[in-house]
Amino acid sequence: KMLRRVLCTVLFMGALPSLAEASQGHISVVLLGATGDLAKKYLWQGLFQLYMDQVSSGHSFTFHGAALTALEPGQRLMFDVLKKLACPPDESPNRCAVLKDQFLKLSQYHQLKTAENYTVLNREIETLLRQEGLKEAGRIFYFSVPPFAYTEIARHINSSCRPPPGAWLRVVLEKPFGHDLQSAQQLAAELTSFFREEEMYRVDHYLGKQAVAHILPFRDQNRQFLDPIWNQHHVERVEIVLKETVDAKGRTSFYEQYGVIRDVLQNHLTEALMFLTMELPANVSRAEEVLQYKLQAFQSLRRLEKNSAVLGQYQAYTSQVQEELQKAPDYISTTPTFAGVLIHSDSLRWEGVPFLLTSGKALDERVGYIRVLFKNRAYCAQSETLRDAGHSQCKAKQIIFYIGHGALNTPAVLVSRNLFRPVMPKGSWREALGQSDLQIFGQPLSDYYVYHPVKERDAYSVLISNIYHGRKDFFITTENLLASWGFWTPLLDSISHQPPRLYPGGVENQHLLDFEMVSGEVAFTMAEPVELLNPSRQMPSDYRTVQSKFRQSPLVSAWSEDLISQLASDIEKTASKAVAHSGQFHLALSGGSSPVVLFQRLARHHYAFPWKHTHIWLVDERCVPLTDTESNFLSLHNHLLQSVRVPYFNIHPMPVHLNQRLCVEEDRGTQLYAKEIMALVANASFDLVLLGVGTDGHTASLFPQSENGLEGAQIVVLTESPVKPHQRMSLSLPLINRARQVFILVLGKGKHDITTLLSRVGHQPRKWPISGVSPSSGQLVWYVDYEALLG
Amino acid sequence: KMLRRVLCTVLFMGALPSLAEASQGHISVVLLGATGDLAKKYLWQGLFQLYMDQVSSGHSFTFHGAALTALEPGQRLMFDVLKKLACPPDESPNRCAVLKDQFLKLSQYHQLKTAENYTVLNREIETLLRQEGLKEAGRIFYFSVPPFAYTEIARHINSSCRPPPGAWLRVVLEKPFGHDLQSAQQLAAELTSFFREEEMYRVDHYLGKQAVAHILPFRDQNRQFLDPIWNQHHVERVEIVLKETVDAKGRTSFYEQYGVIRDVLQNHLTEALMFLTMELPANVSRAEEVLQYKLQAFQSLRRLEKNSAVLGQYQAYTSQVQEELQKAPDYISTTPTFAGVLIHSDSLRWEGVPFLLTSGKALDERVGYIRVLFKNRAYCAQSETLRDAGHSQCKAKQIIFYIGHGALNTPAVLVSRNLFRPVMPKGSWREALGQSDLQIFGQPLSDYYVYHPVKERDAYSVLISNIYHGRKDFFITTENLLASWGFWTPLLDSISHQPPRLYPGGVENQHLLDFEMVSGEVAFTMAEPVELLNPSRQMPSDYRTVQSKFRQSPLVSAWSEDLISQLASDIEKTASKAVAHSGQFHLALSGGSSPVVLFQRLARHHYAFPWKHTHIWLVDERCVPLTDTESNFLSLHNHLLQSVRVPYFNIHPMPVHLNQRLCVEEDRGTQLYAKEIMALVANASFDLVLLGVGTDGHTASLFPQSENGLEGAQIVVLTESPVKPHQRMSLSLPLINRARQVFILVLGKGKHDITTLLSRVGHQPRKWPISGVSPSSGQLVWYVDYEALLG
Repeated sequence: KMLRRVLCTVLFMGALPSLAEASQGHISVVLLGATGDLAKKYLWQGLFQLYMDQVSSGHSFTFHGAALTALEPGQRLMFDVLKKLACPPDESPNRCAVLKDQFLKLSQYHQLKTAENYTVLNREIETLLRQEGLKEAGRIFYFSVPPFAYTEIARHINSSCRPPPGAWLRVVLEKPFGHDLQSAQQLAAELTSFFREEEMYRVDHYLGKQAVAHILPFRDQNRQFLDPIWNQHHVERVEIVLKETVDAKGRTSFYEQYGVIRDVLQNHLTEALMFLTMELPANVSRAEEVLQYKLQAFQSLRRLEKNSAVLGQYQAYTSQVQEELQKAPDYISTTPTFAGVLIHSDSLRWEGVPFLLTSGKALDERVGYIRVLFKNRAYCAQSETLRDAGHSQCKAKQIIFYIGHGALNTPAVLVSRNLFRPVMPKGSWREALGQSDLQIFGQPLSDYYVYHPVKERDAYSVLISNIYHGRKDFFITTENLLASWGFWTPLLDSISHQPPRLYPGGVENQHLLDFEMVSGEVAFTMAEPVELLNPSRQMPSDYRTVQSKFRQSPLVSAWSEDLISQLASDIEKTASKAVAHSGQFHLALSGGSSPVVLFQRLARHHYAFPWKHTHIWLVDERCVPLTDTESNFLSLHNHLLQSVRVPYFNIHPMPVHLNQRLCVEEDRGTQLYAKEIMALVANASFDLVLLGVGTDGHTASLFPQSENGLEGAQIVVLTESPVKPHQRMSLSLPLINRARQVFILVLGKGKHDITTLLSRVGHQPRKWPISGVSPSSGQLVWYVDYEALLG
Repeated sequence: KMLRRVLCTVLFMGALPSLAEASQGHISVVLLGATGDLAKKYLWQGLFQLYMDQVSSGHSFTFHGAALTALEPGQRLMFDVLKKLACPPDESPNRCAVLKDQFLKLSQYHQLKTAENYTVLNREIETLLRQEGLKEAGRIFYFSVPPFAYTEIARHINSSCRPPPGAWLRVVLEKPFGHDLQSAQQLAAELTSFFREEEMYRVDHYLGKQAVAHILPFRDQNRQFLDPIWNQHHVERVEIVLKETVDAKGRTSFYEQYGVIRDVLQNHLTEALMFLTMELPANVSRAEEVLQYKLQAFQSLRRLEKNSAVLGQYQAYTSQVQEELQKAPDYISTTPTFAGVLIHSDSLRWEGVPFLLTSGKALDERVGYIRVLFKNRAYCAQSETLRDAGHSQCKAKQIIFYIGHGALNTPAVLVSRNLFRPVMPKGSWREALGQSDLQIFGQPLSDYYVYHPVKERDAYSVLISNIYHGRKDFFITTENLLASWGFWTPLLDSISHQPPRLYPGGVENQHLLDFEMVSGEVAFTMAEPVELLNPSRQMPSDYRTVQSKFRQSPLVSAWSEDLISQLASDIEKTASKAVAHSGQFHLALSGGSSPVVLFQRLARHHYAFPWKHTHIWLVDERCVPLTDTESNFLSLHNHLLQSVRVPYFNIHPMPVHLNQRLCVEEDRGTQLYAKEIMALVANASFDLVLLGVGTDGHTASLFPQSENGLEGAQIVVLTESPVKPHQRMSLSLPLINRARQVFILVLGKGKHDITTLLSRVGHQPRKWPISGVSPSSGQLVWYVDYEALLG
């Protein structure tokens, strides 16, 4: 009845849509959580803006607020919100007043609590449409509710509120979408059982920020300038930053579960990162292509490690948590409220360029920006004082997508004048021409071309409009979401118990949160002041390496990450010594998973390693082609050799693949490798052999009771593994024992039992081949992590 | 007689050396060119300073001015100079006056013109010493004469003026020391026939500049701070700059032969470069070690190419030359008066760091400095306006050795305060503590720790003192000199006909001389304004590639450097297309010298080349081990593969070395390679084969009248070369003709005859194997440089 009245009014007014236009069909918008904070602050205003924009589009609308509250108080609450809806400054007050009146009449409150409630809502919509003789175009369900309520609501909508065939359903979901990969997968799987992928619109409101939304169009419209410079050879670094002055007070029940990485970096800043790094589709308005290229960009991101991030927590946070969550006074939170993360992409375009994502609460200013800083490749022959600032190539060159707040206090796109004058869409962005003595990113504002949006729109207005237009590229697909969680979860896991640095908050932070990049990692620049020491740091020192003895040989022990860096340093030291001594370093490496982290560490952190003089040998190999994913050599190749400069001639894969067949006795692969060793390695004595240990006590590919390799004159042997692939080639125990140094690496809880056993048994190589490792005139060192050592 | 009088005076004064000290022996200093400009301006003053410093050292001195002028006028001229000698500000006026009086008495003029003159001088020195009963310590001959006079004087000194056994001879030589490698070698050989290496002191007066002389001590004394950052991972760039405001007016007869590179870069700036880049000896005062490490640093420098430099010439230069050298009004000089050169070192420490050497006349200011700029690796979490400047890691970090003039107008060492507080020798450098609002290198002077010399000494005083002390590390050894010329000569040769950019001079130059680095090359930032176009540019366009036909196939022709860059681009295009099409690119490359430049170009300029998907095959190979210097693969490896990331599995050297022997039929190397091709290359059809041509018409290793490979089913063959090493392995002509693309590269005058011949003959592969190259369904393109094409 309400709709009929409104439609009549509309028709009488004449200026508004005719019936012919109305034939485009009717759209019902259901806002779940209609009286919540988000709805009050942004969503109703966004829906009103949609109505103002689309009232002449040919669609008719009804708006249904819904919540758990009973009808009458709910209605009151909701209409209190609606009455306060503002008219945008770019709208004539008269038209707006008329439209606001109509909007109120088209809006209705519903209590949605039981299954029955949903059935009733559905019936009301159907009845209304039938009475008015309107075709249904579609329904939008906007979930502005906590995520625990998602499944229940989704089930009801799916079972009771689907529109009839021919009309579309769009459900709009607000974060959080899980808190790690597993939970996100689970939530996604649940939703997928109720909705099809194209029906789901996951909101990341950053994609509605005008400066963020303009990244791809900017890259597209300025291809001619950007094509040559949008790559590792020209970009020095990229900063993606969201700083807040507020803290988490009053929201700790949410914040304590999430922290800054899940709250801001995993979603908002990551999406901005993707818009910057993804390859540019030929047509940026084709959502499907955009999404596909974005996913590819995720594939190129280098895995994050513990030291990819610096973490902080403002000092008052723990007491806020204690108070709001009724925790004991000795409760200590390790939830970070500040994070700086260094991200690298291994794509050809971006390799080596640091992407710094930073966000935090209780900082000195509120500001959001994306800053692309270009390399300075110029030498200016004129003295500084005589340079013409406008043309100087020696000034910094930057492109900044300014999200808002901060010194500019408005969204903006800034391009250094010595870079290029950008092409900007005239209708939506205008050049700022006024004078200003503002300094921004180290330079006066006059050094930039500056553009502002013609109409400032808040993110939710932009997004609601995009939901209406079905622009899925403004939303997070399931694949996109899981790719992002897949990227962030390893870091979140590795830092979950790491105590963040405490900071006082506000301008007091000074340089306490400044951080630096060093060989692919980040660290705070200043030492932690004693008076701010995080109480949670007063746990037993996790990170000291322990030195003692194991099986009568030196033992180095630490948590695995620290152990690996110690081992990598020791290998480099051994290498440098060998090269200084004989000009060469002969290194024999084992396969398996443990060394992978070591290989990566060597590749990324040991720039002074004498690779040019290093020979790489294999300790053992599986009888598969070298390019097979099971091949030890392939793993070594991909994680180490591809990144360093070992001469081709110094690389010695095992000849398991000869004459198009694998490890056949007559092909004499073992003799071939033995000959190569004899020819190149003095006395067949490797400078360093790196070994691992299996749970059965095997090492290299020498298994318990092996017929070959435990003794005898043969230095390279074929063996049988109890697990697939069965056939192996391996250095023999006597050859290993000729080495100058042998390092044995043992990692993880799974190795605790064998480690304990080995600490007790003697020399019994037939039973436990590893127990036979005992260099006749060299040194043996054990590298065992705490998990393997202590269980 | 003069000496006796002086010695008496000295003894009477008491404060001066006792006889016991005088027993250290006597030193005779002979200044050749005693009335010339350099002597007037610096050398006499330096000798006087030496006398003041060393009068109590136990040595006695006599000073012998010499020139071609006859005795009397010569004496007059010389004593006019000596009378004007200044007392340094740090010397007491009384002592100085007494010493000056003594110095004048110890100084004597000689005409040195004929052999007789030299004999007389020698006799006089001997007589004097005998009369005074003094032991001779040594003789210094300072050559302040034009280089053409060197040989003659050297011969006389060697034959008539050598001191008796037990006393040393030091001859001091002033640049120029040749004008390219060959002339320097010749001059060095001549001098070596008269003097031993340890007797020669070649002056580069920059080594006497206090800031330059302090580079090594600074690196030594600050090892603890510099060790971690003095490398490619921390240094962003290094600028070594000498700017002058004067022009060459009045000196064009010298300048026209040399130009700015020979005048300043080859010597002064290169020596500074060496002090920065050389490895630091354990003891920096051991001259021998310093010299040896310096030579090693020369070895690591990457070869300069035409585009390693930008060149300029101030506008008035040509008319000055016309006037001073009586040239015709249409005479045009291409001598550069400004140069910016980009230098790279391939040492592990410096790889990738740009060293920019810049010098010029008629510029906007007079200044000399060496500036080491460090990378900014920090992110500062505080907004700029709130940062504490002193501590911020986001400010530029620099170390500057300020040679003199410019804004500071005094030698200085500057270190950014956010870097470290340097250790400086208290006695010779003092910290500047005063306030200053000077901006220097983009920052206020207060951002630096600033040190000045306690006593400012001019370069010649420093050097003369070092000659006296026998500090050979302050001078240029023959090896050092030849290494420097060896480094600069290829650039000088390649730019000898290149017209420099004209510039108006002074502040008018604006941004005209600014230049930029792009993929290892430099280029001026701004286009050349038409009104300044160098008239010498109006020569036939050298650098356009010519497209036409050769033997019915497309022909690309240009000067060799441009041809190579065109070819490299075409190969990249072919590669990208192949990878887009099939995911792989199979490239077969020839050996020989021509492709080396191509390999280097591909390695250094084609960052987007799809190396990861490229397979590298050999067209032919010499039957030598792969690590033999004759091996085609070794050349390919060193010039290309070491610098790019081709997966190990995609590299296919020819199996010429099997079972410890070379190209033995029964080892079936050719079948092995053929099988590999068949297994990996679809239809055995390479995407691209790169060939060359021999003067006999051979291509690959297919020689005229070859029994194998010109026809038949065998796709890989063993052949015989008429030149050593005779045995070869080669792809066959039929296999080559299956390729999708064949590029033939022909370079140099030596190929003109065969090129001409080939343009006339038909398909006669037995006679000229190259004439048989004719891809059955692929495309053939000839890349022939102008020299090969036009002779």
